[in-house]
Amino acid sequence: MIGRLNHVAIAVRDLAAASALYRGTLGADVSAPQQLPEHGVTVVFITLPNTKIELLEPLGANSPIARFLEKNPDGGMHHICYEVDDIVAARDRLKQAGARVLGDGEPKIGAHGKPVLFLHPKDFSGTLVELEQV
Amino acid sequence: MIGRLNHVAIAVRDLAAASALYRGTLGADVSAPQQLPEHGVTVVFITLPNTKIELLEPLGANSPIARFLEKNPDGGMHHICYEVDDIVAARDRLKQAGARVLGDGEPKIGAHGKPVLFLHPKDFSGTLVELEQV
Repeated sequence: MIGRLNHVAIAVRDLAAASALYRGTLGADVSAPQQLPEHGVTVVFITLPNTKIELLEPLGANSPIARFLEKNPDGGMHHICYEVDDIVAARDRLKQAGARVLGDGEPKIGAHGKPVLFLHPKDFSGTLVELEQV
Repeated sequence: MIGRLNHVAIAVRDLAAASALYRGTLGADVSAPQQLPEHGVTVVFITLPNTKIELLEPLGANSPIARFLEKNPDGGMHHICYEVDDIVAARDRLKQAGARVLGDGEPKIGAHGKPVLFLHPKDFSGTLVELEQV
């Protein structure tokens, strides 16, 4: 069911510093920051030859990554995103298997303009999993 | 400098359960478990079209992931591995930039039989970074 690894998201306190680190020290291809107020984050995309890393910095008062950064003051890997062909079919299969879908269980339009769902970390080895329909 | 994302490693308490989850619920291509006593883990490889996920279960008394699982009882993303062409050149560049290389700073032969180094999470946004020469 799951296809490509679309991205790994890393939550950071200081996006400028983390961008400089990936661009300078690690020599990666790092985008300019993009504010996504509807998702409560500012994001930078790091393009690797086979996938992407996304650096996320909290934006606004109710950022979904604020609590993660309280628990993980240095930042850290926040979620992993797998691609699926049909997100509703994937959701139904997961629910049938007993996995919990976060929120109201309906796909939302994610940061890339495509339908996404998040799965409960407790059901996936402590890892927050995003599914994105591509 | 960094190339492909070689793998994301997820530490788990119960490798059989996590393998069943990825194979059954997520429909992924999951290998048989391999014991790597010299690395203190039993590993399962999940082959995605563009990269790999590695599930790690502690093996033996001094497993390097035992402490991580004490702090993260559900499991979780443990490290991320980027490929490099020349690990000694990469190491020297990183040290010059002030990043800390774990251990004695010399590349070791990793779980794939290739030279690897680990970088200090505090220098990389709270993320344990492995570099692997390919």
